[in-house]
Amino acid sequence: MVIHLKNTTPEATANEIGQQLQASRFKEGDHFVLVAPFALKSLPESISQHVEASWPMDSDIQLASKSYKNELRSIKWGNTEIGGKTQNTVVIAGPCSIESWEQIESVAKLLKSLNISTLRAGCYKPRTSPYTFQGLGLEGLKMLAEVRRQYGLNIITEVKDSSHIEEVIEYTDIVQIGAKSMYDQSILRRCGEIRKPILLKRGFGTTLQEFVQAAEFILSGGNPEVILCERGIRTFETKTRFTFDLCGAAWLKQHTNCPVVLDPSHAMGYAYGVPDLAKASVAFGCDGLLIETHPNPKSAKSDAAQQLDFEAFTNLMTHMQKIAGAVGKQLI
Amino acid sequence: MVIHLKNTTPEATANEIGQQLQASRFKEGDHFVLVAPFALKSLPESISQHVEASWPMDSDIQLASKSYKNELRSIKWGNTEIGGKTQNTVVIAGPCSIESWEQIESVAKLLKSLNISTLRAGCYKPRTSPYTFQGLGLEGLKMLAEVRRQYGLNIITEVKDSSHIEEVIEYTDIVQIGAKSMYDQSILRRCGEIRKPILLKRGFGTTLQEFVQAAEFILSGGNPEVILCERGIRTFETKTRFTFDLCGAAWLKQHTNCPVVLDPSHAMGYAYGVPDLAKASVAFGCDGLLIETHPNPKSAKSDAAQQLDFEAFTNLMTHMQKIAGAVGKQLI
Amino acid sequence: MVIHLKNTTPEATANEIGQQLQASRFKEGDHFVLVAPFALKSLPESISQHVEASWPMDSDIQLASKSYKNELRSIKWGNTEIGGKTQNTVVIAGPCSIESWEQIESVAKLLKSLNISTLRAGCYKPRTSPYTFQGLGLEGLKMLAEVRRQYGLNIITEVKDSSHIEEVIEYTDIVQIGAKSMYDQSILRRCGEIRKPILLKRGFGTTLQEFVQAAEFILSGGNPEVILCERGIRTFETKTRFTFDLCGAAWLKQHTNCPVVLDPSHAMGYAYGVPDLAKASVAFGCDGLLIETHPNPKSAKSDAAQQLDFEAFTNLMTHMQKIAGAVGKQLI
Amino acid sequence: MVIHLKNTTPEATANEIGQQLQASRFKEGDHFVLVAPFALKSLPESISQHVEASWPMDSDIQLASKSYKNELRSIKWGNTEIGGKTQNTVVIAGPCSIESWEQIESVAKLLKSLNISTLRAGCYKPRTSPYTFQGLGLEGLKMLAEVRRQYGLNIITEVKDSSHIEEVIEYTDIVQIGAKSMYDQSILRRCGEIRKPILLKRGFGTTLQEFVQAAEFILSGGNPEVILCERGIRTFETKTRFTFDLCGAAWLKQHTNCPVVLDPSHAMGYAYGVPDLAKASVAFGCDGLLIETHPNPKSAKSDAAQQLDFEAFTNLMTHMQKIAGAVGKQLI
Repeated sequence: MVIHLKNTTPEATANEIGQQLQASRFKEGDHFVLVAPFALKSLPESISQHVEASWPMDSDIQLASKSYKNELRSIKWGNTEIGGKTQNTVVIAGPCSIESWEQIESVAKLLKSLNISTLRAGCYKPRTSPYTFQGLGLEGLKMLAEVRRQYGLNIITEVKDSSHIEEVIEYTDIVQIGAKSMYDQSILRRCGEIRKPILLKRGFGTTLQEFVQAAEFILSGGNPEVILCERGIRTFETKTRFTFDLCGAAWLKQHTNCPVVLDPSHAMGYAYGVPDLAKASVAFGCDGLLIETHPNPKSAKSDAAQQLDFEAFTNLMTHMQKIAGAVGKQLI
Repeated sequence: MVIHLKNTTPEATANEIGQQLQASRFKEGDHFVLVAPFALKSLPESISQHVEASWPMDSDIQLASKSYKNELRSIKWGNTEIGGKTQNTVVIAGPCSIESWEQIESVAKLLKSLNISTLRAGCYKPRTSPYTFQGLGLEGLKMLAEVRRQYGLNIITEVKDSSHIEEVIEYTDIVQIGAKSMYDQSILRRCGEIRKPILLKRGFGTTLQEFVQAAEFILSGGNPEVILCERGIRTFETKTRFTFDLCGAAWLKQHTNCPVVLDPSHAMGYAYGVPDLAKASVAFGCDGLLIETHPNPKSAKSDAAQQLDFEAFTNLMTHMQKIAGAVGKQLI
Repeated sequence: MVIHLKNTTPEATANEIGQQLQASRFKEGDHFVLVAPFALKSLPESISQHVEASWPMDSDIQLASKSYKNELRSIKWGNTEIGGKTQNTVVIAGPCSIESWEQIESVAKLLKSLNISTLRAGCYKPRTSPYTFQGLGLEGLKMLAEVRRQYGLNIITEVKDSSHIEEVIEYTDIVQIGAKSMYDQSILRRCGEIRKPILLKRGFGTTLQEFVQAAEFILSGGNPEVILCERGIRTFETKTRFTFDLCGAAWLKQHTNCPVVLDPSHAMGYAYGVPDLAKASVAFGCDGLLIETHPNPKSAKSDAAQQLDFEAFTNLMTHMQKIAGAVGKQLI
Repeated sequence: MVIHLKNTTPEATANEIGQQLQASRFKEGDHFVLVAPFALKSLPESISQHVEASWPMDSDIQLASKSYKNELRSIKWGNTEIGGKTQNTVVIAGPCSIESWEQIESVAKLLKSLNISTLRAGCYKPRTSPYTFQGLGLEGLKMLAEVRRQYGLNIITEVKDSSHIEEVIEYTDIVQIGAKSMYDQSILRRCGEIRKPILLKRGFGTTLQEFVQAAEFILSGGNPEVILCERGIRTFETKTRFTFDLCGAAWLKQHTNCPVVLDPSHAMGYAYGVPDLAKASVAFGCDGLLIETHPNPKSAKSDAAQQLDFEAFTNLMTHMQKIAGAVGKQLI
């Protein structure tokens, strides 16, 4: 149950009630919000005098649920906004991994030329083998900060594990929680304490229920800016890297108040399919896309097969613009 | 290996070679085509004098493979064509099951008003429980024939098992092989002997490799008109009925020469998500869509949750027209 | 709802009630049994005078449910019995496909020497590619009949599609419905009309609910002898052919009254793992096992990788005997 | 490629070679071991003088591969040993979560009475909802240490995220890496630096390849004591909590040199199926089992449905003893 306490309720009382109900608690504007386990179906008498409003829930999808707040959350970074009252579809693009200054600068120039405002690039790579490239780490983050300074781009990069979360929070505009770390509660809870947008990727073995419950860890910490990202789930089909779950994305749009970003690059795993999937995503009505592009995909140190070269990416942007127009959305 | 024999090779010789190579054999135009298991990598000397051309293959996806024929197959029924040199996206619509003359006539009128030429409706329902509605059977087929006569619509309906295949072949313009019967070789082989378009649905537990191999049963029987239909696969996610495998569809577009039709209604299982998925499918560049619509979905005898009412369907058509225009396709 | 009518209720009345309730109907002993859709929760007043007993159900798993009959069904063929009051675990063994008389006779001799009474061998192979060995068909069935005559073995073989069901019914002691044809209602319904044991294999993409519902097609036709066979489901793991669903088998044991046979050979797909899985199956407490063995697996025309040679199979039998003893079961 | 350097090769040279080959490096006995990416198929000339032996590999499963070391690794803690030359099957039992001193002491007494030497209990619970019980944390670890002191039991508990890894390392005899944190490289690498056995659980969406690659992070850090634990994977079947992948376990036994422990409790998710699955696991020939037992499962704060009560657990132990005897194993 989500409970808005009256703005006259003092912190000490809010704390007490929170403990009594085993609820999460955070401040929003002038009042406290409590989130009790959904098993709580009615308010204890003793508390009712402090309650402004309350929403009983039928699962632990609570703050993210449309039953609680029907309007899509507005998420802002730099001059960019998605969700809220906008009809924006943001394109977030860049290489899988930052590999060198030359590489990332060439991507930055491409993005500027296409009026794209947000650059993605991995610094800490959650590789499944210890015997492959593991990313540039902090050095990469510093290069990204320099890209931001020189080119005015916003930066998003992924937290792989909690050992480097503070670095990622410091250097980026959006914190991306990766598919392999989305159950990590120390990361989720830390992201609940800050006020930057969090892009939460769905694990490839994660149900929609668990996915949104992970978002609840962040939201119930007091950070309202959560973006949900579908990036493919693991199924019996192995001719493609993963299976892009657009049905799941439709469920998220219908049942949650968080903007939904789609990542066709990781879902497909092969560049040949990315343009068609990206076009489909725009027509689907997503709030944003993550697309991998690299100046020379064949030589990429990770995910070589799935990154678009600059020509294919530029071409795709033209098509996506047209489709966005056809569905009443604005590509930004 | 696919082998085109010379047009001078007599049938008896073609037969002999076919037996020697354990190959399927059919006549195409003026010559015979043999399809030997892909393990055959080079032609025996003794045969070469009869061979016009040959294509070694790396799996038993042979006739359907772009390595054999790169151009998309053209499939025609009535005045409708998809694939080939067209940029057509066909919309095939109608209820899950034909339930009564009133019901199917109201759908027919809707389709005519929207310039849709092909009506879908199930007569033999492959229900998983013996205790639910099993379809109108032959009576339904006869109603569909009457709809064709009165409204000039083309008809597609599904074969559930081989006991009624002759009836379906007789009464329909396109024969649909259902997801639950796509491994049935008596159906597949029979469909290889006729010359009507076959819409082959992917089983929900079927790999892409097996799916296209099922198409090979039809193609190697001599019927070149196979349409592949992705309609959702079964995964761990159960908040939606199935998981729509657009990555798989991208693989089919890249590797096969058969037109690809998408069925967002069965994939999603809930009407709320169908319009967004259908719009995505058009932008994706599919050759056609199957969409379920019913005059009164709540009272439908099967698949009540996923059928669009007429207003939602009409509305969706308008949106899909615009998207088709944006991607250079024509909605028919 | 399952309904036992009084033994005084005449057939005409039983028919009438059946139609009124949209129920399946069959005769069991001296009375009629009706099975109405589970949505029916209480009996109409007008019928009650004809009803001896009734069982409301919470899903369309009805006749197979322990809520209806708690005792395990007894299934008998030849001198063999499983289920019922026995503690028997039957071993059914043989090659994937019958390939020649020499091959099948060598298997028959092995089985006799090991006191195994039931021989499995496929005649109609549901291969996924049209370009591979499709089985000996009727010729194979006749060889199996000759094996039965000469060696006194019981025979089980698989129905691939409904075109040859009558042949299989005629020649075998147990009819096996294959994983790829278990949704075929013409097969299921035909098996409901006969009185031979039916071994129903779970499709590799089939939920437990659907699996048991398929059994209901047979049971509600009046044939009480259904054996459920788990043979591996399709998952994201592809290092093994399928994933052996022992959890699912545990669910079947807990919730249904049908004996459960396990098929480790198809689940694993590789001979190296079959003995450990077979031993596990015996300790698990299954009612039977299907195990593939072949005189020379490397030269087998189908499933070459997963068949045990005679030495490995003989060795396995010794181990399974010991385990059966340890869990209070008798290997037959 | 795994490379054993000569014992005369000094550390500086080993380092240099390691960097040249982009290899992991650790000391084993008197020599250094390097693990280069498997793409390296032959040794550079310049290095050969320093190489004692080398093993080219065909995937990044290297140190764990039977191609490198064929003998099963021996893992020891307290007086307990599994793997190596033993035929031991260890039973590790206890509640899902430690909840109170009374609870854990009652379990400890049960284990002592059954001659079980290792107690499992979670302190940090990786729950998927922020609104449920999250575990006793450090307080729980201290209770477990007290249990060890008073009852002489070995302790295993799970690392949920890297924030508390040092505490778990300090207080336990075996460090368990949970299914949801098995991709966390900071945890994996830290476990590679210590010399306690690590029980690595397979993620429920994790392929066998990725699973063993995660083990490689630990092994290539220099800790040879890795136990692999299969605990159920996520599939389309939801009537049980997960699907127990015994086929996968058979693959692990065949291809890796790490002992395999099975966890039927988490796989099944329901107490009714755990005994049959546990018995199957013993007959399968696993090196150990994790089984959840709780003095009063109905009141458990987590995983209430799947924990055995003491009577059921005691009963199961008797059966498992007999089966172990039948397969030549010793239950410890």
